[in-house]
Amino acid sequence: MKSWLTIAEDSDFSIYNIPFGVFKTKSSTPRAASILGNQVIDLYALAQGGYLKDVLADAEVLNQKTLNAFIALGKPVTNAVRLKIQTLFSEENAAQKDSLIAYLIPVADTEMLMPIHIPNYTDFYSSREHATNVGTMFRDPNNALLPNWLHLPVGYHGRASSIVVSGTPLHRPIGQTKADDQPAPTFGPSRLLDFELEVGFVVGKETQLGDSISTANAEDYIFGLLLFNDWSARDVQKWEYVPLGPFLAKNFGSSVSPWIVTLEALEPFRVASPAQEPTPLPYLQFEGQKNYDIQLEVDITAENGATKTVSKSNFRYMYWNMCQQLAHHTVNGCNVEVGDLYASGTISGPEKDSYGSMLEISWGGKNPVIMPDGTERKFILDNDTVTIKGHCAKDNVRVGFGQVSNKILPAKL
Amino acid sequence: MKSWLTIAEDSDFSIYNIPFGVFKTKSSTPRAASILGNQVIDLYALAQGGYLKDVLADAEVLNQKTLNAFIALGKPVTNAVRLKIQTLFSEENAAQKDSLIAYLIPVADTEMLMPIHIPNYTDFYSSREHATNVGTMFRDPNNALLPNWLHLPVGYHGRASSIVVSGTPLHRPIGQTKADDQPAPTFGPSRLLDFELEVGFVVGKETQLGDSISTANAEDYIFGLLLFNDWSARDVQKWEYVPLGPFLAKNFGSSVSPWIVTLEALEPFRVASPAQEPTPLPYLQFEGQKNYDIQLEVDITAENGATKTVSKSNFRYMYWNMCQQLAHHTVNGCNVEVGDLYASGTISGPEKDSYGSMLEISWGGKNPVIMPDGTERKFILDNDTVTIKGHCAKDNVRVGFGQVSNKILPAKL
Repeated sequence: MKSWLTIAEDSDFSIYNIPFGVFKTKSSTPRAASILGNQVIDLYALAQGGYLKDVLADAEVLNQKTLNAFIALGKPVTNAVRLKIQTLFSEENAAQKDSLIAYLIPVADTEMLMPIHIPNYTDFYSSREHATNVGTMFRDPNNALLPNWLHLPVGYHGRASSIVVSGTPLHRPIGQTKADDQPAPTFGPSRLLDFELEVGFVVGKETQLGDSISTANAEDYIFGLLLFNDWSARDVQKWEYVPLGPFLAKNFGSSVSPWIVTLEALEPFRVASPAQEPTPLPYLQFEGQKNYDIQLEVDITAENGATKTVSKSNFRYMYWNMCQQLAHHTVNGCNVEVGDLYASGTISGPEKDSYGSMLEISWGGKNPVIMPDGTERKFILDNDTVTIKGHCAKDNVRVGFGQVSNKILPAKL
Repeated sequence: MKSWLTIAEDSDFSIYNIPFGVFKTKSSTPRAASILGNQVIDLYALAQGGYLKDVLADAEVLNQKTLNAFIALGKPVTNAVRLKIQTLFSEENAAQKDSLIAYLIPVADTEMLMPIHIPNYTDFYSSREHATNVGTMFRDPNNALLPNWLHLPVGYHGRASSIVVSGTPLHRPIGQTKADDQPAPTFGPSRLLDFELEVGFVVGKETQLGDSISTANAEDYIFGLLLFNDWSARDVQKWEYVPLGPFLAKNFGSSVSPWIVTLEALEPFRVASPAQEPTPLPYLQFEGQKNYDIQLEVDITAENGATKTVSKSNFRYMYWNMCQQLAHHTVNGCNVEVGDLYASGTISGPEKDSYGSMLEISWGGKNPVIMPDGTERKFILDNDTVTIKGHCAKDNVRVGFGQVSNKILPAKL
C-alpha cells in the first residue's frame, strides 16, 4: 500500500498507521485529526466535505476537544473511519488528490492537544526487569521481586488531572524528602527527578460496575496505544510511599504523546509474550501473541541542545501484557470508562542500555550518564528536555507513535 | 431560626443545614435538590418559579444530573443560594408558605442519585488511632506508625469510576488472596470484606497545574462534606498492596451519602485540632480551629433485620485536617478539579467502641461482634447492610448528613 502523498520512508505516520489525535490551528477550534507524513488531516473538515458519510453518521463527534465521543462509537465505526481515511489517501485514489489536499495542514502550522479526557488512570508495574532493578536497589538483591509480583500484574491508581500532552513544560516538583542520616524531613525542590519510559493504552468501551473483562475479550476494549512518561521524583517517592504507594512523587505531572495508534495498526507487530513461570491463575491465562514489538528510545536534551540517547528499549519485554492487565483490573468488578488510560509501568529491557529510568540507568546515581557536552546526568536537571520515541518496523512497513517530549522548568518557589 | 415547615427535632436536615444533592422522581429527570426534614426541595422548579432569581443567573445549572456546574459557580453564588433557600423556608417567610409547598416532595417519593461527577478521588490515612491499630496488627506494635506518618498526611489515589451512592448494592469482590501457610495464591470471593468509616470533602474550585493551595486558603476550595464508606477486601489487600498500595482491594466499590453538607453549615461545629508533635513543616502549619465535631456511627444490619451499632466515632479525632490534606496534595503543583473527592481515611477514636473498621473492631477477627440474633461478625457477611450515619449537634442546632447505607450481595461467580 502506498499513499499518493509523499511520505518520508522513516516517517512514523505511514499510510499503514492512521492514528487519531486532536489539534488546533491559529484559526480553528480543537478537533479530531489523523496524520500522514508531516501533514495533519483535518477529520472534521473531511467529514463535512462528505468523504466519511458512508462510515460516520454524525460528524460532530469529530468537532470536539477530545476524542472520547468518537472512540465511544465503538470499533465497528472507528475502524471503518480509519480504513476509509487509508483508502482516500492511498495511491489507488489518486484521482481525488486535488480535492483531498484541501484537508491537509502542515504539522508546523498545528498545535497538538490532549487527545482524550481521561476519567481514570492506572499505572502498572509490569516489566520484570524494572521491578527486579528497583527491588535490588531499594530492598534486597536476593529477593528483588516481592512475592506477589509473579502472580499478578501489580498496579496502582494514578492521578488523571495532571496528565499533559507532549510539549507542555513541567516544573520540578517541591516536596518533603528525608536523608537517611537525618532525623526529620526537609522541604524543597526534588533533587532526584526522573522519567519513566512507558506505553499506555486507551480504553474504547465501557463496562458496568460488577462486570469483568476476560483476557480473550480484552482487545475489544483497547482502542489504541500511546507513549507515556511517568515522571517521578525519586526522593519524594522514597519518603512518602510506605505503606500506600506513590502519591506526590508522581502526581505533579505525567505526559502522553498526542497520537493514539490503534490496536489494528499494530496488528502486524504482534510477538509472543515472555514465558510465565509460575503459570498464572486461570483468569490471567491467555492464548495467542499478546505482546507488541515496539522499539522505544529515550533522549535527554540539555538547554544548549546537547542530546544523548540514554535508553533503547522495547514494549515486547513486558512480562504482563495488556490483556492480562485489563482482566486483572476488572476481575473484582471494577468498571472501566471510555478514555481510561492504563500505563505499562517502566519498560526496562535486560541490558543496561535498555533500562527505562535514570534510577536504573545511573543505578541510583552511581553511574552518571555523560552528555555530549561533557556534563553528567544522574537524574534530570532543570531545563533538560526528555523525549520518548516509539515505532514498529517490519517488512518495509513502519507504524510509529511520534514522541512525547517535555521540558523540565525550575521549581516554582 | 425556625422553619414554617414541621421538622422533627432529631432530623439531620434542619433549617440550619440546607445541603445539596441530586434526585429524581418517577416523573422528573435528575436535578438539584435540598432537603428539610423529610421533604426534598426541587431546586430547579423553585428557580423556575422565580424564587432564586436574585442569587442565580442561570437556573439550568440546577437541571443537571450532577451538581458540578452549580458548584463551579463558586461560593459567592452557592452560599447565596443556600441562604436564600434558608430564608424562603424560615418562619419569617411563612406568608409564602402556600406557594412554596408546591416545591416540596416527600422523601419517600424520591430517589437520591450520585450528587457529583468525581474527576479525581484521593483517600487519606489521617486518623492516628487507625494507622496505629493497623500498624500494630500488620507490622510492629512497637513501631506501629511508619516514620513518615507524623510528618505528612499519607494518602493515595483511589478509583473514581466505582464510587456509588447510598442504596446501591455491591457484590462481594473476587480476587487473589494468599494464606500465610500456602506457597501460592488462590482465587475466589474475598473472605474478609470490611467497611471503613470515613468523611470526604468535595472540591468546589479548580486550580491550574503548577499551583498550590495554602492551609490558609484551603477552605475556599472546600464546597462541602459527605459520608464515605471505603469498602475494603482485607485478604486481597494484604496480598496485593506491596509495594504500590491498595488496588483491587478497594476499587470494586466505594459509597457516599447523597447529601453534601456545606462547609458553611458546619461552621458552628468547629473544634480545635489535636496537638501535632513534631511540629509539621511550615506548609502544613495552620491557624484556627480546623477540625469538626461530627458524631459518627456504623450499624450492621443482617438480612433478618437484626441491627447492631458497631462503632461510635467522631470526625474531630482526625490528626491531619482537611486544610492540611489539601495543602499537602497540591504543594507539588498537582491540580484539583471541581467535584474532586478527598476522603479522610478510616476515622478511629481512642476507644474500642470508636474504631472505624471491622479489622480494628474484631481485631483481625479475634474478637467477633455478637449481633442481636446471636450470630457473629468478624467481617461483613453476604446480605449484610452497612450504614454509616453522621451529625453535628450543639445548642439545640442539629446539622446532619443522613446516611450512606449499602447492602453486600454474594459474589458474582
